[in-house]
Amino acid sequence: MPEKVAIIGAGLAGSLLAIYLAKRGIEVDVYESRGDMRLEEVAAGRSINLALSDRGIAALREVGMDEYMLREAMPMYGRRVHPPTGETKFLPYSGRKGEYINSISRGGLNVALINEAARQPGVQFHFHKKCVDFDCGSGTIKFADGEVITPSTVIATDGAGSAVRNSMLHGGVERFDLSQVWLEHGYKELHIPPADGGGFLLDKNALHIWPRHQFMMIALPNWDGSFTCTLFLAHKPVPPPSAGGQSADGATRAFPDDAPCFSSLDDPAAVRAFFEREFPDAVPLMPTLIEDFTANPTGNLGTVKCFPWNAGGKALLLGDSAHAVVPFYGQGMNCAFEDVRVLASLIDRSGSPTSAGGRIDWESVFERYGELRKANTDAIADMAEENFYEMRDATADPVFQRKRQLETMLEQAYPDYFSKYSMVTFREDLPYATAKRLGNAQDEFLMNFCRNIDDVSTVNLAEVQKKILEVIK
Amino acid sequence: MPEKVAIIGAGLAGSLLAIYLAKRGIEVDVYESRGDMRLEEVAAGRSINLALSDRGIAALREVGMDEYMLREAMPMYGRRVHPPTGETKFLPYSGRKGEYINSISRGGLNVALINEAARQPGVQFHFHKKCVDFDCGSGTIKFADGEVITPSTVIATDGAGSAVRNSMLHGGVERFDLSQVWLEHGYKELHIPPADGGGFLLDKNALHIWPRHQFMMIALPNWDGSFTCTLFLAHKPVPPPSAGGQSADGATRAFPDDAPCFSSLDDPAAVRAFFEREFPDAVPLMPTLIEDFTANPTGNLGTVKCFPWNAGGKALLLGDSAHAVVPFYGQGMNCAFEDVRVLASLIDRSGSPTSAGGRIDWESVFERYGELRKANTDAIADMAEENFYEMRDATADPVFQRKRQLETMLEQAYPDYFSKYSMVTFREDLPYATAKRLGNAQDEFLMNFCRNIDDVSTVNLAEVQKKILEVIK
Repeated sequence: MPEKVAIIGAGLAGSLLAIYLAKRGIEVDVYESRGDMRLEEVAAGRSINLALSDRGIAALREVGMDEYMLREAMPMYGRRVHPPTGETKFLPYSGRKGEYINSISRGGLNVALINEAARQPGVQFHFHKKCVDFDCGSGTIKFADGEVITPSTVIATDGAGSAVRNSMLHGGVERFDLSQVWLEHGYKELHIPPADGGGFLLDKNALHIWPRHQFMMIALPNWDGSFTCTLFLAHKPVPPPSAGGQSADGATRAFPDDAPCFSSLDDPAAVRAFFEREFPDAVPLMPTLIEDFTANPTGNLGTVKCFPWNAGGKALLLGDSAHAVVPFYGQGMNCAFEDVRVLASLIDRSGSPTSAGGRIDWESVFERYGELRKANTDAIADMAEENFYEMRDATADPVFQRKRQLETMLEQAYPDYFSKYSMVTFREDLPYATAKRLGNAQDEFLMNFCRNIDDVSTVNLAEVQKKILEVIK
Repeated sequence: MPEKVAIIGAGLAGSLLAIYLAKRGIEVDVYESRGDMRLEEVAAGRSINLALSDRGIAALREVGMDEYMLREAMPMYGRRVHPPTGETKFLPYSGRKGEYINSISRGGLNVALINEAARQPGVQFHFHKKCVDFDCGSGTIKFADGEVITPSTVIATDGAGSAVRNSMLHGGVERFDLSQVWLEHGYKELHIPPADGGGFLLDKNALHIWPRHQFMMIALPNWDGSFTCTLFLAHKPVPPPSAGGQSADGATRAFPDDAPCFSSLDDPAAVRAFFEREFPDAVPLMPTLIEDFTANPTGNLGTVKCFPWNAGGKALLLGDSAHAVVPFYGQGMNCAFEDVRVLASLIDRSGSPTSAGGRIDWESVFERYGELRKANTDAIADMAEENFYEMRDATADPVFQRKRQLETMLEQAYPDYFSKYSMVTFREDLPYATAKRLGNAQDEFLMNFCRNIDDVSTVNLAEVQKKILEVIK
């Protein structure tokens, strides 16, 4: 009898995982609480487009889906920064050709992955099957409709609010560490339509940013000529530090008293005034601004960390259920896809030829996976939070802009120089924890260096590169 | 109609809170999942004795219970450190007379508080009433027996595994921050009986410590001549750092591979050998060592932080339900009692003369309480974890011992010098966050200072005191 794995959640991670497992001769049942997004419009409550980059591409490549997916993606070669007045500025993501990120439709990618998974022998999708309880001892899943199943093992790709994680938290796994921390900022998606007669109203090959310190807006291109904008803004006025206003980890949140927030944008006039003041070049491109702002929900942004990820050999958390991150490094999906790739490589190395009917020692695979992966998912979670501050503050800072310019020059001159951003985004061979460690050391040196120069074009690049090698060695 | 408050949990915090509220003319129903500990032996699963100190005493004093409780307490004037071989060493808690902590029976104190609360008009206890669900929107509590109530408001003193907190976490409060982190160490309670014919087998006025770096044992005196010992030891062998073994917050845990742990003490011979090697002076005092070790459970040690603590005006978390701490600063109960005192002072200041039938604006009282209190409970949670390392490592370190000696001399010479320990333990007028900030600055200076001297008796105290004032100003 072949191994039979239940995957909870037919999102991006769960669908890709089904393909990977099927190719290893494992029978897979995928249970999804919502309907089949191939047949119906499903309210995913998630962002419309995503930035696919090298870690995600590498995972798609292993199952032959990279080229297919990139065909409809929009390459973004850098950030285009929109100041409140004056010219925009383009900051490339890399000094090397061929290093860019790809704006891709979440829905389109998910449907393609479900289609591919459903084509594999041994894969069955079950929609409208909401997991409401999981018994970590017996490995039994209970669904909302009353059905109860006990597969060989369960892999939970059911996202940041994972039901399987909750059962681990509430007694299923002894000494289960969990942290769930929300940003004071929420987000709202808005829309820039295609130009009349087709084409793009903004540079189509960039991720657009309007950095405004306490808040920011971004826009990613879509294949059809439109852009999906996202406004990141505090939910509520944030109390001054003396009155408390600390997060669970004790970090102080300090904003001016009169900083704008979602709760103060409570009528169309206030919304319009805010946008005209802060994003004057975008407003003319957003004819449905007020309708979108009113109709679209305000989302929350949080980081979830937990450990261990497995309940013996009965269940494993993978993707957002194990490590939900904020979206500011564009790595949530890429990290989850890398999870799938790492897990599959450990199944391969476990020495159980499943296609020949061998059994997999799930517990040891899961434990090894957690040991290997935890430091890396912690690193990307931390970097994603830090990148929020970089995007909304630093991209508007001349020192930071000089530093990015210098890094681009270094990347052009030295093929083996990689900025932190490049290590995270384009080096699928480097673990996130390594990218964080080396990248932070480089960044500290370069920011100090750029504070003391006015013009990076006169810099002795060879000397800087030599110093960086000393810093990171 | 008077205010009617439901308190969930008749432990130390809930019982004291009932007294405080009753004295303000508020009707109180206390719901406790276990039986009435005045009538039956209740397995609390918690430590047998506790260290009552000034913050807790101040809260008891306000309701006239301090003297009564101290009558049966055992004063502990300092730590007596037991090295593996050789003489014990006494490290006073303070250089001032009258600054000491008090070993007190948890059960005795709890029964006294329930008795006192039950004497108040308007207070009703309900035992065997387990809260299984709470609706943060309507403020309705559901009990395991099916009863449903909707009081004016709910104050949850139901401990580290709070059911009310769980309902806040799972959708009841939007953007609810939570962190729950377990130590790799567990604990087991053991026993030193009174001497034959009465009296104490160890110095009765000290908290005894056997610091052994990777683990430690402590012993607190009981009124009847016995001591309650607690062994703190890793649950399992801890993997070397390279293989993962990180906590949710990314801190690395490094221990030698062969460090002892509960899972390796799996038979009586191993237990006896471990104790004879590590605690040779204690073994002869522990005739029931093997029986106790086998019969008593191994407990877990964790820190819980969360925020916000209130669901509008419908519910408030107070005590361990809001901020469970590890026991190493002896402040869990003292902090919860201080919670009660702070909350009561805010009710008083809310300007609603409840005895005259006025209504309390619970939401604004709860919000103000959270703003005032969160930084302080975070501070004691952090200090409690840090004190674990101080107790098991630093108390055996000659530099630390010199530093404590020097601090004792400073406290003797300068009535307004307070060590961090003294600020936390004896200065109920100083918020925990202030004690942490000043104490850490002092500690850093003094540890550096003591690293470079051999003999503290020759130190110019006036000069050191002057430098400290500069450091903390």
